[in-house]
Amino acid sequence: MTHLVHLTNARLATGDRLVSGDLWCDPEAGVFVPPPNPASPASAIDLQNRIVAPGFLDLQINGAYGFDFSEDPAGEHAGISYTERYGDVRRKLIATGTTSFLPTMTSQLPDRYHQNLPFLGPSNSRDPYDGTESLGAHCEGPFFAHNRMGVHLPHAIHASGSTSEPKRVFETYGASNLVDSDLLSVEKEPGSIPSHVRMITIAPERPGGLETIRQLSQKGIIMSIGHMAANYQQARAGIDAGATMITHLYNQMNGHHHREPGPLGMLGGASDVDSQNEAKNLKQSGNSDAINRPYFGIIADGNHVHPASVRLAYLTHPEGLVLVTDALLLLGGEDGTIDWLTRRLTKKGISVKLEGTDIIAGSCVTLLQCLNNFRRWTGVSIPVALQAVTSRPATVLGLAHIKGTLQPGADADFVVLREESVPGQSTSDLAVDQVWKFGVKVFDESAT
Amino acid sequence: MTHLVHLTNARLATGDRLVSGDLWCDPEAGVFVPPPNPASPASAIDLQNRIVAPGFLDLQINGAYGFDFSEDPAGEHAGISYTERYGDVRRKLIATGTTSFLPTMTSQLPDRYHQNLPFLGPSNSRDPYDGTESLGAHCEGPFFAHNRMGVHLPHAIHASGSTSEPKRVFETYGASNLVDSDLLSVEKEPGSIPSHVRMITIAPERPGGLETIRQLSQKGIIMSIGHMAANYQQARAGIDAGATMITHLYNQMNGHHHREPGPLGMLGGASDVDSQNEAKNLKQSGNSDAINRPYFGIIADGNHVHPASVRLAYLTHPEGLVLVTDALLLLGGEDGTIDWLTRRLTKKGISVKLEGTDIIAGSCVTLLQCLNNFRRWTGVSIPVALQAVTSRPATVLGLAHIKGTLQPGADADFVVLREESVPGQSTSDLAVDQVWKFGVKVFDESAT
Repeated sequence: MTHLVHLTNARLATGDRLVSGDLWCDPEAGVFVPPPNPASPASAIDLQNRIVAPGFLDLQINGAYGFDFSEDPAGEHAGISYTERYGDVRRKLIATGTTSFLPTMTSQLPDRYHQNLPFLGPSNSRDPYDGTESLGAHCEGPFFAHNRMGVHLPHAIHASGSTSEPKRVFETYGASNLVDSDLLSVEKEPGSIPSHVRMITIAPERPGGLETIRQLSQKGIIMSIGHMAANYQQARAGIDAGATMITHLYNQMNGHHHREPGPLGMLGGASDVDSQNEAKNLKQSGNSDAINRPYFGIIADGNHVHPASVRLAYLTHPEGLVLVTDALLLLGGEDGTIDWLTRRLTKKGISVKLEGTDIIAGSCVTLLQCLNNFRRWTGVSIPVALQAVTSRPATVLGLAHIKGTLQPGADADFVVLREESVPGQSTSDLAVDQVWKFGVKVFDESAT
Repeated sequence: MTHLVHLTNARLATGDRLVSGDLWCDPEAGVFVPPPNPASPASAIDLQNRIVAPGFLDLQINGAYGFDFSEDPAGEHAGISYTERYGDVRRKLIATGTTSFLPTMTSQLPDRYHQNLPFLGPSNSRDPYDGTESLGAHCEGPFFAHNRMGVHLPHAIHASGSTSEPKRVFETYGASNLVDSDLLSVEKEPGSIPSHVRMITIAPERPGGLETIRQLSQKGIIMSIGHMAANYQQARAGIDAGATMITHLYNQMNGHHHREPGPLGMLGGASDVDSQNEAKNLKQSGNSDAINRPYFGIIADGNHVHPASVRLAYLTHPEGLVLVTDALLLLGGEDGTIDWLTRRLTKKGISVKLEGTDIIAGSCVTLLQCLNNFRRWTGVSIPVALQAVTSRPATVLGLAHIKGTLQPGADADFVVLREESVPGQSTSDLAVDQVWKFGVKVFDESAT
């Protein structure tokens, strides 16, 4: 009989509430279990009214602790292999509460995708000590609008051409990275076709983009629109074709104008009559809330987006907001300037800019910091804020039954949080006390 | 004993619901009354399940049926006086369902305010046959940003200078039009100081603007910010100083940028930390919803603002949205081109543009048309949509106890509406069957 772990005296983040109660998990199977027969052997752990939340899930993170997921696996790093470095980063990252992620590659030439994606696919390991679990890679680029590259490698985006025909997209990433990769099953449903790549960010307005979105979304890959020049109608066409998300809303896309609302305009849904004096895109529903409202990532680091803009997006579509870090290898590093790809980046606090400029080059915040910012800026409750880093990203991936939840049967990935009051601030901050992966405690603040 | 009017078999727009029930009003007192003693004499009218809503209230309308509220009262109009013409317009307008309004003057030189405002103040009449009742004038301008004039008279705005010092504002409108005008009492509360002017639109960023907002809002005048160059912080300063509304949100103001959210950014409220990495404007509340969220007018004519932008604003702050027409004298007129002030305007359908250009010069829609557009674009229920033209504008004016409600004691201004299905459209449109003012039926579609 398995020795269960019994957590008592906890406040469990469940839906939009904190529910006082107990939680059981089975460290052998790595899952939460229903309340067992009282006679079952169990180690009881008193959490002293602390908060238990599902482990955090980051859908967009480019690297951390000096490691860039897009770096050359054949590169020289003091004799330490890409695999070892990748493992090391995941074991560090899990201590921040992020128990799963989509390791994200910036825009690269095809060879780099062919080399790196097999490393970055679903972890296919239930060893709790392997660190943050990959649920598959996120390919952010290179099929972008040429005027919305951000700091991605221009030559990689130029090499992608100006179209996004399915054939070119398959060749760029490598078809075997996209489908039929039967070695790496993280989904438990029969019929799902996992692959190394779980998510792709693509500009929908490039020729062939909608067909690519259609084909890949049908194969189970999560398509997100971003780094785009799309206007409102072009962005909506991307969502109508099967994309379900907007990559880092506001950044690297058209802004809002009251008569050309751009991608932001989609957050309110659609309606019967969306154009002036004529009925385009007729929808047979009177309720805009039900129609094609995309999820959207937000980088709530305090640099990328103004707090008022975070509130605007959140209040327009509360069930759509997903916090992402978009963190670079500078996350967890010291302030200073480093070489990165063909650029030089300067980190100062939470800010990362191209050296000598005011151009934002990415973030170096943890998902926990984003969560605390989000709470401060919106005033939403702790459990509602937690949804943006737990159940909602899991839902985006179609994994809400096994990730981002404390329900029996789901993977027992969770964090124990304490509340810390901050002078001059009406909301408390959350801090990570413990991190558990597959029912095993892998980080304990009190032990550090 | 008064002979009461008893409306039966109606669906009453009450809060966010349509409630089947009866309604009584007293045509002598002009108010709704509680269900009377069954022995009271009453004329029963069967409304056959039609909708009864409070009469519509338009906070911003510049003219209609060929009459401009800002026109020269000494001007030549075939021997028909300003007073007669103004009365004629009000008797026509009430048939559209708008039982009360703020007749709105565009930017003018001081003399024009001194001449016209005494005509446009609160009607101070309870004669149901006087047409749409004025609740006081709305002075839209001339204290505007010089780059946000719209089609207002440039010389009037230039004459206002670049500041908005209280002394200059009082002189421009005439102090007697702003305060202590004890002849014209529409408020029933003791201590209120009504005046000819009930609302002023002002750009908050002009020097002296905040002090003017502070002084006039303390005197009971509703201050609305608009036609402004204000950034987010400057707009917020206007609201913090006492302004409670944004004039036609989106039009004639800075747009939204994700790092400089502009006036739109205020719709989500404020929070502890509204700037990057430092605590400015510290608010001691954890709930952004409670903090200084302004009401906002929206011109939902299908020209001024995209439906998606209306949804965005509505969903961000549902309790803030007020539909206004911003209608010109062309409302109710034929298509064609006319002289207006120093300009020429071309009306084509619902569109009014400067002759030969694509510059929107105003609207010529009724509040009912705006209401139907708003329903189509958002899919909200009939009673919820009605709030944006009834109880909410009444609340903006501090008159929710006497206008925009069917409660006993309130003025018995109401409309009887029928639902009309529209081919290819999932929501019905509303049409006006009857209009009642002070408990007397003044318009009946079936009689026309």
